[in-house]
Amino acid sequence: MLDLGSVGMERGMLYETVVTTKNNDGVPNAAPIGVTCKDKNEIVLYLHQGSHTVKNIKAEGRFVVNILKDPIVFVESTLGNLSKDYFDQYWDDFYIKDSDAFFTANVIHIRDVEREDQFGVSTTTVLRAKVDQVIKKSEHVEPLNRAIYGVIEALVYLTRMDMVSGDMEKLYRHRMNEISRIVNKVGGSEHKKAMKKISEAFSKYDDK
Amino acid sequence: MLDLGSVGMERGMLYETVVTTKNNDGVPNAAPIGVTCKDKNEIVLYLHQGSHTVKNIKAEGRFVVNILKDPIVFVESTLGNLSKDYFDQYWDDFYIKDSDAFFTANVIHIRDVEREDQFGVSTTTVLRAKVDQVIKKSEHVEPLNRAIYGVIEALVYLTRMDMVSGDMEKLYRHRMNEISRIVNKVGGSEHKKAMKKISEAFSKYDDK
Repeated sequence: MLDLGSVGMERGMLYETVVTTKNNDGVPNAAPIGVTCKDKNEIVLYLHQGSHTVKNIKAEGRFVVNILKDPIVFVESTLGNLSKDYFDQYWDDFYIKDSDAFFTANVIHIRDVEREDQFGVSTTTVLRAKVDQVIKKSEHVEPLNRAIYGVIEALVYLTRMDMVSGDMEKLYRHRMNEISRIVNKVGGSEHKKAMKKISEAFSKYDDK
Repeated sequence: MLDLGSVGMERGMLYETVVTTKNNDGVPNAAPIGVTCKDKNEIVLYLHQGSHTVKNIKAEGRFVVNILKDPIVFVESTLGNLSKDYFDQYWDDFYIKDSDAFFTANVIHIRDVEREDQFGVSTTTVLRAKVDQVIKKSEHVEPLNRAIYGVIEALVYLTRMDMVSGDMEKLYRHRMNEISRIVNKVGGSEHKKAMKKISEAFSKYDDK
């Protein structure tokens, strides 16, 4: 049996995926969702209240995680416009045809929590799920993780700090905080170590 | 002979790499540099005037492009602190030990141009180089390209536009322009198409 290691997922890291579900009438739905790998057979998802994905997962108790890099699939599934042609069926589940890999997962724990963030109070559904079947469609699968991109973007800002001032400098500082937050949320230990080094170098500009 | 296709590089796309060179005394240097794939055997680089990389390439007429994802290598080479232990020698050239692949390249055209951007006027060295030897150290190599991450980040902002106002909204608009610029610079046709769809959806908030 394949586990999450076979699709390149590492414990503690968060990957950008597209989750497919179906409603009571068997109509497929797709949405871009971050999936945290908790263990080689367990994942955690944070879902916005009120979405089709939450409704469908609560009804079915299962869902499909698609690993892919097709930008159009991410855009159309966000806009709710993904054409039916993109879906295919695997037994009773729907997956995205051009994914590099997909896996089915069964919910083992689900709860709604009130969370307060920068946008106010909202309800988030937190769920833990057990990986059921992993299907690889490419020999080598690399799931999308944003950490290295955060590191590279942060390095761009760091090297430009000598050149900016005023509003631009404020913008860079804001963006650096945001990147640091993301890298620490989605990355592995090496990414966090790298980000710490960048933050240290960046702090030399604190008295600028 | 292997070409850039063998390391996953596609024509017209820009990849984040680490370029290694050596100076007259044989001391190795590493710097993170964007490499545009022009053809299966040709690349273009834009380099900051005054860097070790420019000086070394002008003297040697060749350099090494390392394809890797190690965040520490990106950070330390930016800060100019990359330990010698990270380098290894391939004939007369230096490469980064833990790269997934590397290739040597010979300069075929090089010129200094004055460019004006948001930071003022500066001199950039533009060079075209022919790929010499490609060495794969992993079976499957995927070079770093930022386009899909730009698309995903832009989608995050798009879905939050209903929730923000004032300074936050201004920040999102600024960031969307920046992402669009990056995706159009580094991405392939599908990334650009996706970004266009996002910009169209985003423009619905113009009169907000």
